[in-house]
Amino acid sequence: MITRIVWMQFRPEAVNAFLALFHERAPRIRSFPGCHHLALWRDRAQPHVMCTYSLWESEAALEAYRHAELFRDTWAQTKPLFAARPRAWSFDTVWPTEASLDYPIYFGQAAPQLEQLLGQHAPSSVAVLVDTHTALYCYPHIRSVLPADHLLIRIPAGETHKQLDTCQYIWSQMLQAQLDRQALLINLGGGVIGDMGGFCAHCWKRGIRFVQVPTTLLAQVDASTGGKLGVDFMDVKNIIGAFGDPLAVVIDTTFLRTLPPAQLRSGFAEVVKHALIADAEHWQQLIQLPTLDAADWTQIVPHSLAIKRQIVAADPYERGLRKALNFGHTIGHAIESAALHTTESLLHGEAIAIGMICESWLSAKKAGLPDDELQAITHFLLRIFGCYPLNNLPIADLLALMANDKKNEGQGVNFSLLPHIGAVEINHTATPEEIQDSLAYYMETCRQQDTAKPH
Amino acid sequence: MITRIVWMQFRPEAVNAFLALFHERAPRIRSFPGCHHLALWRDRAQPHVMCTYSLWESEAALEAYRHAELFRDTWAQTKPLFAARPRAWSFDTVWPTEASLDYPIYFGQAAPQLEQLLGQHAPSSVAVLVDTHTALYCYPHIRSVLPADHLLIRIPAGETHKQLDTCQYIWSQMLQAQLDRQALLINLGGGVIGDMGGFCAHCWKRGIRFVQVPTTLLAQVDASTGGKLGVDFMDVKNIIGAFGDPLAVVIDTTFLRTLPPAQLRSGFAEVVKHALIADAEHWQQLIQLPTLDAADWTQIVPHSLAIKRQIVAADPYERGLRKALNFGHTIGHAIESAALHTTESLLHGEAIAIGMICESWLSAKKAGLPDDELQAITHFLLRIFGCYPLNNLPIADLLALMANDKKNEGQGVNFSLLPHIGAVEINHTATPEEIQDSLAYYMETCRQQDTAKPH
Repeated sequence: MITRIVWMQFRPEAVNAFLALFHERAPRIRSFPGCHHLALWRDRAQPHVMCTYSLWESEAALEAYRHAELFRDTWAQTKPLFAARPRAWSFDTVWPTEASLDYPIYFGQAAPQLEQLLGQHAPSSVAVLVDTHTALYCYPHIRSVLPADHLLIRIPAGETHKQLDTCQYIWSQMLQAQLDRQALLINLGGGVIGDMGGFCAHCWKRGIRFVQVPTTLLAQVDASTGGKLGVDFMDVKNIIGAFGDPLAVVIDTTFLRTLPPAQLRSGFAEVVKHALIADAEHWQQLIQLPTLDAADWTQIVPHSLAIKRQIVAADPYERGLRKALNFGHTIGHAIESAALHTTESLLHGEAIAIGMICESWLSAKKAGLPDDELQAITHFLLRIFGCYPLNNLPIADLLALMANDKKNEGQGVNFSLLPHIGAVEINHTATPEEIQDSLAYYMETCRQQDTAKPH
Repeated sequence: MITRIVWMQFRPEAVNAFLALFHERAPRIRSFPGCHHLALWRDRAQPHVMCTYSLWESEAALEAYRHAELFRDTWAQTKPLFAARPRAWSFDTVWPTEASLDYPIYFGQAAPQLEQLLGQHAPSSVAVLVDTHTALYCYPHIRSVLPADHLLIRIPAGETHKQLDTCQYIWSQMLQAQLDRQALLINLGGGVIGDMGGFCAHCWKRGIRFVQVPTTLLAQVDASTGGKLGVDFMDVKNIIGAFGDPLAVVIDTTFLRTLPPAQLRSGFAEVVKHALIADAEHWQQLIQLPTLDAADWTQIVPHSLAIKRQIVAADPYERGLRKALNFGHTIGHAIESAALHTTESLLHGEAIAIGMICESWLSAKKAGLPDDELQAITHFLLRIFGCYPLNNLPIADLLALMANDKKNEGQGVNFSLLPHIGAVEINHTATPEEIQDSLAYYMETCRQQDTAKPH
C-alpha cells in the first residue's frame, strides 16, 4: 500500500472554489480502481493550506490514476487556484506493520498491568470472560484490581464451545448487566477465549474495548499477530469473525504454571517452530532443556514472540514470506483434523510436532537439510512429545485433507521447508508418495526409539 | 479528531538510529491518553525523509503529550539526527465526514450501476440477499447483470427475522456455496436486509465486500448515514453489530413502486421530518402533494438524503447538533414500542408521524412554533397517515419508555423541537404532564377531524 500526500497552499479567495471541486470529484476519485482511501485535510493554523491523503494499492494503480482523464481535468482546474507550488510525496508505512501492532503488548504480572490500564482508560464498567479453568486458576490473581461490581462471564473450556451459541450466552450476560459502549472486556484464557471474547466485544453495541490476557503458551506466543477474531461455524474453524484490535495485550507467564502439562507442551511446539525456521541460537538453547519444567518462560515467551513478529513484519500483507510460519503445519493440520474422528485425543501442538518431524524429513529430501540436523530435530521432538500411533489414521484421508488445504496454489501440496536449522524456504511442493514416505519415517523412527513415551 | 503530520529529513547515516528510537518509543506514544493512531511513513523516493502521522482526540490531548517527558526525551534524541528543519502541521479532516461517506452513492437504475460495479471490482463470486418480497419484485430487475452462477439467499421479510438465527442461515448458504474472501454480497431490500446482510458480510471470513441496494423509501433516505450494521438480540434493536462501510450504495427509486402503500407511507415520515427540521422550502413542496402516488421520488429521495447528510456533516462525532434528527422520535419510538404489545400493528413511520404531531405541539408550547405552523403540520400528517387509536396504549408505560431513552441526560425527557418549520433546537426538556398533554392534543384533534381515515 502506498500513502500519497499532496500539500497545497491556496489563494485565500480560491479556497471555496477548490472545496466545491473536491467535494464533487472526491467520490469518483475514491472509487477509482486501486484507491483504498481518500481524505482532505485542512490546516488548523492556516485554513488556506490543505492536504489530500490517499492510499493506493500499488504504484501501477497510482500511475493509472495520474493518467486518467479524471485526474487531468481535476488537476487542471486546481492548478490556477494555488498560491504556492504544491508538494507531493509517496510513502511506505514503516510502522505499524502487522508485527509492530497498533496496540501495546505488556509483559509482566497481569494484576498491576491491568490496574494501570483500567486507571488510564476509565471504562464505565468491566467484564471478565473466563472458562472453567481460568476461573479457578487465573481469575483470583487479577480479581483484586477489578472494580467491585465487575461482571464475570464464565463459559465451559474447550474449542467445541467456540461457537455462536456461546457468543449468545456471553451477549445475554452483557445485556443483563447493561454494559454500555464505554465498557471494557478482559479476555482471560487461551485462544478460544481471546478469539471469541474479542469477537463478542467487537459486535457488542458495534464495538467495545477489550484487553487480551492470554494464559496458555500457545496464545502467548501467538498473541501479537492478533486482530483476528472469530468463532467456528458448522465445523469450519474461525469462519465467522472480524478484524479488530485489542486495547492492549498483557502477557503474564506465571499463568503458564496453571496449565496441565499436555497443554504447556502443546504450545511449546510453536516455540520450537519459531526457533527452527528463524533462530538457530534459540534452538540450541531449547534443546538444552531437560524437561519443560526447567524452562524460564519469562525469557522464552518474549523471544519466541519476537521471532514471529519479525517474520510477520517482513511480509505484512501475507504475500509469501509469511508462509514460513506454515512449517510443520501442512501435515500437522491434516493429522489434527483426522485425529478428531478417532478415540485418541491429539492437541494442536502435538499434531504440529509430528508435522515438523515429517516435514523435516521432506526438508532433508528436497531442501538440503543436513541429516544430523534432521536427527536432532526428530530426537528432540520425540523426547518432548513422545510417539503417537499414526497408523490408526486413514492415510488416504490425510492426503486428501492436505490436497484441499487453502494454502495450495496450482498442482502439488505446498510446503515451507528447512534448508538448515534457523532458515526456511517457501513454496516447495511434494507428491502424495513423498508425503506418505515422510509419515512412514515418523512411524519407523518411533518403532526404533526406546525413548518413545506412551502417549 | 486532529491529524498531526511531522515531516522530517534525516542525515542518511542517522536514519537507523532514528528507526531504532522510533520502534522503541512508538508503542508508548501510541498508548498515550488521547492518541488514536500513530504511523511512521518513509518517502519512497528519498528514504531519509520520513513522516509521523498521528491522530489525537483533541488539542488538549496533543498539548499534554507535547509536555510529557516521553515526548521531550524522544524529541531531544531525534533533533540531532535531522538534516533539515522538520515541519509540522495539525489538520482537521474536511472529507470524508460521516456525511460525505467514504464510499460512493449512485442514483439511477440499479441494473446498469451494478453491472459497472461488478465489472470494475471483479469479485470471485456474487451473492444476493433478498427477502420474500424483494425476491419477487426487485431481484428480476437486476438478475440479468449478475454472473450466471450467482448465489441467491432468500429470507422471510420482516423485522422479526433480523436476528442471529437468520444470520446463521445466511452463513450456512455462503458456506455451502464456498464463498471466498474475494466474493461480494448485494443486499437487495429494506433496512433489515441492509443491516443484517452488511453484518453477515462483515463477519464472513473476517469481511467480504458488500453493496447496499435499498428498496424501501426509509432505507433510501437513511442509507447514506450507513456504516451501522447489525441485528436485534433478545428484543433489543441492533445491539449486536459492527461498523463497516459498503463498497457502494445504489439507490434506484423505481423500486419504490414495488412497495405496499403502507410501507411507502412509513418511509415518507422521515422525508417529512428532514423537511420540517431543516428545509422549509422542501416542506412547501411536500404539502402540495395530493397523495403519495403523485410524488416524484427521483427528486424527493436525493433531496431528502442531502438534508440528512448536511446535518450529519455538521456534527460528525454526534456531539449534539445531530440530535436534531430525533425530532418526532422521542414520543414516536415509545409509541412504536408500546404498540408491539397490542393487536393494532404500527409501522415505524406511522409511529414517527404521531410523534411529530405531539412534538410539534410541544414545540408550540416550549420553542415558539407559530400556531398556524402547528396546524399545518398536524393537518398534513393526519391527511397522509390518518389517525391511530392512541387511547388503547397504556400512557404510563409510554412515559416510562421515554424516561428510559438512552438519549436523556440528567433530569427530564430530552426533546429536539421546532422554533419554526425548517429549523430545530436541541436539548429541550418536557415533564411527564406536558408529554401527556401532547398526546391528548393528538387524540383530541383526531376526534375532531372528519378527514381521519380508519387505520
